[in-house]
Amino acid sequence: MSGNSFGRLLRLTSFGESHGFGVGGMLDGCPAGLELSEADIQAALDQRKPGQGPTATKRKEADKVRLLSGVFEGMTTGTPIAFYVANEDQRSRDYGELADVFRPGHADWTYFQKFGGIRDYRGGGRASARETIARVAAGAIAKKILWRCGVVIQAGCVELGGIAAPEAADLTDAPMRPYFAPSERMVALWDARVEEARAAGDTLGGIVAVVVKNVPAGLGEPVFDKLDAVLAHALMSVGAVKGVEVGDGFAAARLTGARNNDPLLPGGQFASNHAGGILGGISSGQDIVLRAAVKPIASIAQKQRTVDKDGRPREILISGRHDLSAIPRIIPVLSAMTSLALADALLLQRRMESF
Amino acid sequence: MSGNSFGRLLRLTSFGESHGFGVGGMLDGCPAGLELSEADIQAALDQRKPGQGPTATKRKEADKVRLLSGVFEGMTTGTPIAFYVANEDQRSRDYGELADVFRPGHADWTYFQKFGGIRDYRGGGRASARETIARVAAGAIAKKILWRCGVVIQAGCVELGGIAAPEAADLTDAPMRPYFAPSERMVALWDARVEEARAAGDTLGGIVAVVVKNVPAGLGEPVFDKLDAVLAHALMSVGAVKGVEVGDGFAAARLTGARNNDPLLPGGQFASNHAGGILGGISSGQDIVLRAAVKPIASIAQKQRTVDKDGRPREILISGRHDLSAIPRIIPVLSAMTSLALADALLLQRRMESF
Amino acid sequence: MSGNSFGRLLRLTSFGESHGFGVGGMLDGCPAGLELSEADIQAALDQRKPGQGPTATKRKEADKVRLLSGVFEGMTTGTPIAFYVANEDQRSRDYGELADVFRPGHADWTYFQKFGGIRDYRGGGRASARETIARVAAGAIAKKILWRCGVVIQAGCVELGGIAAPEAADLTDAPMRPYFAPSERMVALWDARVEEARAAGDTLGGIVAVVVKNVPAGLGEPVFDKLDAVLAHALMSVGAVKGVEVGDGFAAARLTGARNNDPLLPGGQFASNHAGGILGGISSGQDIVLRAAVKPIASIAQKQRTVDKDGRPREILISGRHDLSAIPRIIPVLSAMTSLALADALLLQRRMESF
Amino acid sequence: MSGNSFGRLLRLTSFGESHGFGVGGMLDGCPAGLELSEADIQAALDQRKPGQGPTATKRKEADKVRLLSGVFEGMTTGTPIAFYVANEDQRSRDYGELADVFRPGHADWTYFQKFGGIRDYRGGGRASARETIARVAAGAIAKKILWRCGVVIQAGCVELGGIAAPEAADLTDAPMRPYFAPSERMVALWDARVEEARAAGDTLGGIVAVVVKNVPAGLGEPVFDKLDAVLAHALMSVGAVKGVEVGDGFAAARLTGARNNDPLLPGGQFASNHAGGILGGISSGQDIVLRAAVKPIASIAQKQRTVDKDGRPREILISGRHDLSAIPRIIPVLSAMTSLALADALLLQRRMESF
Repeated sequence: MSGNSFGRLLRLTSFGESHGFGVGGMLDGCPAGLELSEADIQAALDQRKPGQGPTATKRKEADKVRLLSGVFEGMTTGTPIAFYVANEDQRSRDYGELADVFRPGHADWTYFQKFGGIRDYRGGGRASARETIARVAAGAIAKKILWRCGVVIQAGCVELGGIAAPEAADLTDAPMRPYFAPSERMVALWDARVEEARAAGDTLGGIVAVVVKNVPAGLGEPVFDKLDAVLAHALMSVGAVKGVEVGDGFAAARLTGARNNDPLLPGGQFASNHAGGILGGISSGQDIVLRAAVKPIASIAQKQRTVDKDGRPREILISGRHDLSAIPRIIPVLSAMTSLALADALLLQRRMESF
Repeated sequence: MSGNSFGRLLRLTSFGESHGFGVGGMLDGCPAGLELSEADIQAALDQRKPGQGPTATKRKEADKVRLLSGVFEGMTTGTPIAFYVANEDQRSRDYGELADVFRPGHADWTYFQKFGGIRDYRGGGRASARETIARVAAGAIAKKILWRCGVVIQAGCVELGGIAAPEAADLTDAPMRPYFAPSERMVALWDARVEEARAAGDTLGGIVAVVVKNVPAGLGEPVFDKLDAVLAHALMSVGAVKGVEVGDGFAAARLTGARNNDPLLPGGQFASNHAGGILGGISSGQDIVLRAAVKPIASIAQKQRTVDKDGRPREILISGRHDLSAIPRIIPVLSAMTSLALADALLLQRRMESF
Repeated sequence: MSGNSFGRLLRLTSFGESHGFGVGGMLDGCPAGLELSEADIQAALDQRKPGQGPTATKRKEADKVRLLSGVFEGMTTGTPIAFYVANEDQRSRDYGELADVFRPGHADWTYFQKFGGIRDYRGGGRASARETIARVAAGAIAKKILWRCGVVIQAGCVELGGIAAPEAADLTDAPMRPYFAPSERMVALWDARVEEARAAGDTLGGIVAVVVKNVPAGLGEPVFDKLDAVLAHALMSVGAVKGVEVGDGFAAARLTGARNNDPLLPGGQFASNHAGGILGGISSGQDIVLRAAVKPIASIAQKQRTVDKDGRPREILISGRHDLSAIPRIIPVLSAMTSLALADALLLQRRMESF
Repeated sequence: MSGNSFGRLLRLTSFGESHGFGVGGMLDGCPAGLELSEADIQAALDQRKPGQGPTATKRKEADKVRLLSGVFEGMTTGTPIAFYVANEDQRSRDYGELADVFRPGHADWTYFQKFGGIRDYRGGGRASARETIARVAAGAIAKKILWRCGVVIQAGCVELGGIAAPEAADLTDAPMRPYFAPSERMVALWDARVEEARAAGDTLGGIVAVVVKNVPAGLGEPVFDKLDAVLAHALMSVGAVKGVEVGDGFAAARLTGARNNDPLLPGGQFASNHAGGILGGISSGQDIVLRAAVKPIASIAQKQRTVDKDGRPREILISGRHDLSAIPRIIPVLSAMTSLALADALLLQRRMESF
C-alpha cells in the first residue's frame, strides 16, 4: 500500500535511497526456467548509468549489480529474484542548507509534509531518480520473459527542448545514438539546443516514445485495469513524467470518428493504428504506441526563490553536478516500466485463458 | 486481478453489462458515520444519464439506483455499500450482424481475442460505457468523504471537435451549462461544430479538465503509486480516454527548468502551478490540475470496413441511436474517478501518519 | 483492505446484512466458457438453507438466488459474476434491548468498538451468518472450475457435542444424512445429544472434516501463501470456527519424525498421509485433509450476564428462534471456502509450469 | 501473488535461499518517526540463531543483519526498510544424492512438481527454514510499533514430544529458559524426552502458545479478514505448523454455549476468555491467545524409503547436523508473525474511527 511495489503476478518491490547504502529490489512471480545472469541485468543498467551522453554530468558510478537470490545454475527457480546495487560514495558530504531548505520542483516540500517533517534530505533520499535502478534491473528480467513470446520494445526521444523529430520516427537504432535519437540529424539539432541551455544555466524537457511490437491480442483487463490504464500508471510513476498518451493521444481528441476508427482487415490486421494497439483496454495485436512528456530537470544552475522549513523566504543556488535533461537516462526506465507492465499482463492472460 | 476493482483502502468493485439485468457495484472501506442516502447517489447518476444535452441520443433511461447494504438509519456503518441500477430494456433485440462482425474502434475484436471467442455482443456487453454507472455511484460517496475534508472537485470540457476554450477556463459553473462548458461563448461555438458533425454522420472528441481544490499536502505514495500515477490510471481506465496530463503536461516538456519550476512562498504557497499540484508524486497543497484526451465516439453513421469472426471482409453500418460525443457524459465519470483516487489516498495517508 | 474480498485470481467480494435488503456478492476472475446457471448456485444454497435438520430453528426462508451478470447464453464470459439473494422479511421488527445490550459470544461489542459506536444491530447486521450465502454461492462456481480438473470436495461432521465419529470416517454420503454425518449410527448418537442440549436451553459445537480428492500436485505458493496457510485463512474466516488442522494437525505434534514422515512410493504415491496432502505449503497430490473446530452457537435460551452500551451490568435472555448448532449449516460454507481457495490456487498455478 | 509478501499496510516481502548468497527482506509501510537500529533487529535474530539449546545442532552461524534502507539518523523515514543477512558458508558442498532424491516430509517433491522440475536442492533452497530470518527481522520492527501502543507479545512452548505443561502456563519468563519453557520443571521433563529421541535417531514436535496483552478492541476486519483468520494464515505459513487454535480452540467444540460464552462485565472486561480475545473476528480487548501445532523435524537420523526423480524407489539416510525439534527456534518466528499481523491490523484500524 505504500507504493513500493508494482505489478500483480510479476511484481517488483524496491528499496533504497540516493545516499544510503544502496538501491535494490526483488522481482516476484518470474516463472522458473528462464536463463538469467548478472550480465543480463548489468547490460540494462549500463544504459541508464550516470555520466553518459551530451546532457550528462561528469559524475561516474559503476552501478554494479549483484543477484542475491532466485537463480540457480543460471536459471530462474520461480522464487523471488533479488538484486542490489551498492552506492559507491556514501560519505555524508556537507548537504549544507539542503537539510533546511526546499528545492523548487523537487519532492523536498511534499515529503516533508507527508512524513511529518522527517526525511532523508541527502540527494533527495528515496525521491531521487536513483530508485530507477531497481526498475531497470527488473525490467531487464521482464524483457527476457517478453522475448520468449516474441515481444520487442523500442524506445527513443522524439522531442527535446521543444525541437520535435518528424512523425513516425523509426526507433530501431535509437539506443545506438546520443539522446536515443531517431536520426543523426536530430542529434545535431539537439546538441545545439543543449549547448544553448547549458550556457543559460538552464535545463530541458522532452518527449519519449515507446513502441512495442508483436504483442499478442488479448492482453489487459476490462474496466479498471485496462492495458492503457496500467501502462499510464507505469509511465507516470517515473519521476519527471507529466503526461502520457496512447496512440494518437491528445491528437485523437481532434479527429472525428470517421478518421480515428481503425478499419479491421483480414488476418488480424488493421488499416491504420490511431488507437496505438489498444481497443477497449485490451491489446489488439497491433504495435502499442506510447508517448511520455518529460519535464525539465528541476536542478538548474540559477538562483531560485524558495522557503526554509520554518517558512522563511530564502534564495537557493543548487550546487553539484546535475544532468541537463532527464533525456536520455529516463528512456531505459520508461522502457523497463513498459516491459514490467506487459510481462505482467502476459502472465495474467496465460492464467485466465478460457476453458 | 481481473480488473473489476479500483482503489486500495476505499475500493470499488463493479459488475454488469449493457444489456444484462443491470449494473452495480460495491464500495468497500468507507468509514462508518457518513450520512448517505439513495438521493445522494441518484443526483450524481442524473448527471451522466443518457438523453441529455446537444450531443445526446434521444434514448431515455431513468437509471434509478438502489442502495442494497452498508447504510443503517441514514448513516454508513463501515461495511460494504452495495448499489444496483437495473437495465430497463433487457429484451433481446435483434443484434443482427453484431454477433458476428467486429465494429471498428470498439472492443469487439479484442474481447473476442481475450475471452477465447466468447462475448456478450449485445451493446458491447461489459465493454459498454454503461459500466460507468458504478463509477459515478461510488464517486458520489467518495465525494462526500472529500467534502468532509474540504476537498472540492470541478470538471468541465475545455475542447470539443478541435475548438479549444481559452486557457485557465473557470469551471465553477460548468455543470450548469451544456457540454459542462466554461462559458456561454464556447457553448455557441461547440453547438455549431456538433451540427456540422451530425450532418456528416460523424462524431467528435475533446478534452476534459479536472481541477481539485483544497487538497491537503502529503497525499500519494513515493515511487510506484505516486498520486499522479494513480490518477492517470484512474482516468485512463475510462473508455475513450487516450491521454492524461498533470499540470502543464506535454507543454511542460517544452519549458526550461527555470520556467517550469514553481517557486515556494511562505505559508505553504507557490508563485505558480506548472506542476499541477503534485511534486515527486505527492500533493503539494496547490490545486491538482488534470486533463484527459477523449477520442471521438466509435459508432459513426457511416459505412465502415471491417471483418467478421471468420476473418472475411465486411461492410458495416451501425444502426441505433448513439451519442455524438462522449462529452459531456464522460465528465461526471472522470470527476468520479478523480474522487475515488483522492479519497483513497486521503484515507491511506490518515493511516500512515508518522508517530 | 476492509476484509470483504477473498482470493487472488478468483476473487469473491460480498456485501449485505442480516436484516437489510439482501445479501450478495461478485466472483471476479472466473474464466470464460464455463457452463453456469442459477440452478447450479441454488442447489448449493439449498444445502445451507435455514430450517433444515435436527439442530435447526423452524424459521424458513427460500433464499432464491438471482444471477445479475457475467453469464451469457448459459456460459461464463470472463467478466464478473454477480449474484443476489433478497432478504424475505426486512420489516423492522422490534429489536428491543438488542440495540443497547451486547450479546455474549457475539460480535456486538467488538463491532461497537471497531466502528465508533455505529452498528446495524438487527440480527447481527453484517456479522450475521447470513453473509455466508455469498460464500456458498461463489463456492458453487468454484466447484465447477474444480470439477473440470477432476477435483472433488467432501465435507461432513466428525464430532458433535463432544461425541466423535470413528477416525477416518467416510464422508462420501455425508450430505445425504442429517448433520452431514458419516454414518447412521452417529446420527442416532447425535440426535440424543441434541435433545439433551435443547432441553437444557443450551447449544452445541463440533468438528467438521473437509477432504479434497484428486488435487494436482504443485498448488500453493512458497513462504507466506502456503496452501495450508490460505486454507486456514479461508476456514478460520467463517464465524464460529476456532481452530483449523491440516492432516494429523495437533496429533502430529505428538508423533516423532519417524512416525510422521510419509514415505514416497513410485508413481507419485505415498505410504501414508500424515501431512494431509500438503508438504512445504504445496499440494503433494494426496488427499487434502482439513478439520475445523466449531464453537457452540452463542444464542442460548438461558439468561446471561452482560453490559449495555453505557457500561451498566444487565441480564439478557435472547428470544427468537436460533439454531442449536452451527452444524450442519456451516458445513456447506466450509466446503465452499475450501473450493474458493483451491480453485484460486489452481488458476494461479495454471500454465505456470516453467518455460 | 507468488506468496513472498505478507501484510496489507505493513507489508513484508522476503527473498533468499538456504545456500544462496543470503536471506533478506523489506518491510514497507512502517510509519516515519520510529527509532530503529540494526541492534534492535539483531537482538531478535539472536533468539532464532542456530546452535542454541538442547534440541540444536552444533552448527553455528552469526546471522549478522545489515539495514540497507529506510532509516536515517536512527529513525524510520516512512520508506521501505530493507535488511539482509549473508549466508556465511555458500560453498557448494557435495549435495550428493539430494539433487536427485526427494526427502520424506520435506518440500523436495512438491517444489519439483510445482516448478516443472527446477529447484535449488541445496539445503531445501527457498523451502528451508532459513527464510524465517526475514520474518523475525521484520517482526522486530513490528514489535516496536506495537510497543508504542502498549501491546506486548509472549510466546513459549507448552508441549514437547507429547509432554504437556499444565494449562494456563505463565510465559512471562519463557524466553529465559531452554525451550522457552514455562517452568524449570518442564525443562527437566523435556530434557529427558529429547535425550530419548536423540538416542533413537528420531525427532520431536510440540505445541507453541502465543499470548498478546493489551490489544486494543476493534482490530481485525469483518467477514474474510477476521483477525483470527489473518493470524491463522500468519502462523500456518510457518513451515512445520500443522494446526492453529484461537482461545479454547478445539476444546471449544466440546463446550456448550452456556459454558463457552464469555459474560461481559463493566469497564470493557469479561468474566472469562474462552474466545481468546477475538469475537466475530474483531479483537475484544482481552488477551489474544493462540496455539500452534508443530510437527516433528522431518530430517531424522534413520534410513527412510523414498523415490528419486525418475520415480525409482530409493533408501535415504539424511546426513549433516539437524535440529531435533523445531522448538524452540520456531517460537521467535511465530511471535514475529503474530507481531506483523497485529501491527498491520493496528495501522489499518488507526484513525479509522468513524467520522
